Amino acid sequence: MKEGGQNINRRAFLHQSVSLVAVGAAALAVPGVHAEESDKALDPMRVPGALPRAYGERSPFEKQTRLGGSGPGTPHGWGAMAPNNFNSLTPLQDLHGIITPSALHFERHHNGVPAIDPARHRLLVHGLVERPMIFTLKELERLPSASRIAFLECSGNTWDGWREAQDVTVQDLYGLTSTSEWNGVKLSTLLETVGVRREAKWMLAEGSDAAGLDRSVPLTDDVLNEAMICYGQNGEALRPEQGYPLRLFLPGFEGNINVKWLRRLKLGAAPFMTRWETAKYTDLLPDGKAYQFTLVMEAKSVITHPSGQQHIQPGFHEIRGLAWSGRGRVTNVEVSLDGGRTWQTARLQEPVLPKCHTRFRFPWRWNGQEAILQSRCVDETGYIQPPRQELVKERGTNSLYHYNAIQSWRVERDGQIRNLYA
Amino acid sequence: MKEGGQNINRRAFLHQSVSLVAVGAAALAVPGVHAEESDKALDPMRVPGALPRAYGERSPFEKQTRLGGSGPGTPHGWGAMAPNNFNSLTPLQDLHGIITPSALHFERHHNGVPAIDPARHRLLVHGLVERPMIFTLKELERLPSASRIAFLECSGNTWDGWREAQDVTVQDLYGLTSTSEWNGVKLSTLLETVGVRREAKWMLAEGSDAAGLDRSVPLTDDVLNEAMICYGQNGEALRPEQGYPLRLFLPGFEGNINVKWLRRLKLGAAPFMTRWETAKYTDLLPDGKAYQFTLVMEAKSVITHPSGQQHIQPGFHEIRGLAWSGRGRVTNVEVSLDGGRTWQTARLQEPVLPKCHTRFRFPWRWNGQEAILQSRCVDETGYIQPPRQELVKERGTNSLYHYNAIQSWRVERDGQIRNLYA
Repeated sequence: MKEGGQNINRRAFLHQSVSLVAVGAAALAVPGVHAEESDKALDPMRVPGALPRAYGERSPFEKQTRLGGSGPGTPHGWGAMAPNNFNSLTPLQDLHGIITPSALHFERHHNGVPAIDPARHRLLVHGLVERPMIFTLKELERLPSASRIAFLECSGNTWDGWREAQDVTVQDLYGLTSTSEWNGVKLSTLLETVGVRREAKWMLAEGSDAAGLDRSVPLTDDVLNEAMICYGQNGEALRPEQGYPLRLFLPGFEGNINVKWLRRLKLGAAPFMTRWETAKYTDLLPDGKAYQFTLVMEAKSVITHPSGQQHIQPGFHEIRGLAWSGRGRVTNVEVSLDGGRTWQTARLQEPVLPKCHTRFRFPWRWNGQEAILQSRCVDETGYIQPPRQELVKERGTNSLYHYNAIQSWRVERDGQIRNLYA
Repeated sequence: MKEGGQNINRRAFLHQSVSLVAVGAAALAVPGVHAEESDKALDPMRVPGALPRAYGERSPFEKQTRLGGSGPGTPHGWGAMAPNNFNSLTPLQDLHGIITPSALHFERHHNGVPAIDPARHRLLVHGLVERPMIFTLKELERLPSASRIAFLECSGNTWDGWREAQDVTVQDLYGLTSTSEWNGVKLSTLLETVGVRREAKWMLAEGSDAAGLDRSVPLTDDVLNEAMICYGQNGEALRPEQGYPLRLFLPGFEGNINVKWLRRLKLGAAPFMTRWETAKYTDLLPDGKAYQFTLVMEAKSVITHPSGQQHIQPGFHEIRGLAWSGRGRVTNVEVSLDGGRTWQTARLQEPVLPKCHTRFRFPWRWNGQEAILQSRCVDETGYIQPPRQELVKERGTNSLYHYNAIQSWRVERDGQIRNLYA
């Protein structure tokens, strides 16, 4: 295959996969085993190790960070949009598996991260209910609980795809998606407690940040079955950037409607038409009309290794990436090495959970020729992630949100990887 | 049921479950909505929020910590055994779901936590292999990768159970177990690369800590199918306390054989009989003989709420706990409210993963009478977690390790919870 190597089976590549040093009996020296005198101070076996910590931190050798994302048409970096109005991108190229460390979960805030004392925080549930009620955190924690491992993605993730941003990393383009185990109370439990009136079809969720973000949530069967009020993330309390001490979580829905720092839920008969769902978070079409309440994040995938701005050498590479769908489980991920002419099935890491990042892997030996790497996701509804031309044909390029086209990475002859709008 | 209330169905308890304040239209004030003048400074909606952080931290209001565990017969606290020889217990009573935050994962070290520069670290694979090899971290990361969500438990978890320690918390007794997503390379991939000789049946794993911990691993089919060399934990690099930059991971096996700071693997025909598997980590029986290589952690469970040293009020409580088995999936967890006379089935949180903490829940209304709460785990082999008398009858009380009897928590009439050896 002239487009950049060939698929190889796992057994075949192992002996050539890395530049390994075969050693004989006389050459068993590794650092810490037969260290030179001058190296003794660096030998971890010669000095007692550090004492325990009540709450751990990562190694000082680890430097991966969230990065400030760009606004549309603005330069890259935090504060590019307005003070306190920012997003922070998860370093997907550095991560393994499906869980995102909470410290590296993406952020999107409209007026910074509020500092909230959980003892003072309350959740009011009112509107079309039998018994308006105010809940403390402690009261919510006593209700029957639930947990779920699921992705959360900003509707603006990959918005640079609409405008063909050049020479970007996978973090730049795709970093506004992360996966956590979310812990809390099912919305249905809460609504059962207050008693929902028959005519209630929507729910206004209000955050207690300085932007006063609020969104209307349709009370569909899916929402009633799956929505949660969360106080936990990856086992401990929510991180401040994720809504501490309380957030709404709507599996599969665009990030901003998962209202953080949640203070009020109001049940109503119709959508509340807040500024966030009229002036913002709609999808402008070529004819000037806009889609509103496009809440579900459709199937999407991206190769995280190799990816933009990385540099590779010929030889074995495991193509690694993430796939996800707001409609349910990922059923299949295919990889192309030739810009979409031919496709091969990638291996999915179990467990494959609904509405959750799914790790895919595909072994590849790069032969030093130009190649165009792509992945496409198929979800349990049968939906297939579209090529860019197909998405643009339907939606135009006026949108900011809900870009989910197939991503292309070009491997150049010198091993440099660059993004491409194929 | 005079032994402390009754099981109730979910719908029935909701209206009485918490001390809720029903509000009318005139009483909608919650902090941040109609705050008094003096409260304005505390209202998160009146001040811009904080700026982003490259690597996040938890809220300053969150105080849960690991605690130093006791050695057998020694007072509670870090350093009770010897300098740098310590364990740190996960606060299970404060956690949600199944993932343990890496910062709160339990620790067990024999000479502290080494500080290792990953660029200098090497893994040597030698002994009965075709091609002895030295791997750098970068080389290992290029090999085909794998991930798995699984528990890790110290063989000494619950050792105070053998000696009937009084008035302890679930953290004190059970805090040496945690669950992470582990990321790395399958051991079988590595062994395929070096070529294992036919006569190799065991593998010596050596750590690069100052204690020089090393253990013999039997190369059974299970180990060859499941063992991993891990560089990642919950998406990012291993935490220093968990073996940064490299550890062995043997799903279902006792903690200490999952050798941390891994530097060498030596293939051999027989176990290597290191100090750690002769003088330590054996199970002394009443007749003076000892079990050796008792590697699998058998099925176990514990109620984390309500649990030791907590205080409850009459009314609704969701009994919550964790169950796990080193033999595979948890198939059933039963709860008793009457000290084991009658049992009822708890609800298991999906996904139920093999060799992984499984969250169970059981709704209960406490009527103010004395009650003895227990849970018992059944795993996919059909094994049932034993009552204490049965375990002691078989094993005596000379052991330090592998205590997995049913745990009893007594709810006293004043609402105080104390552990009990029933």
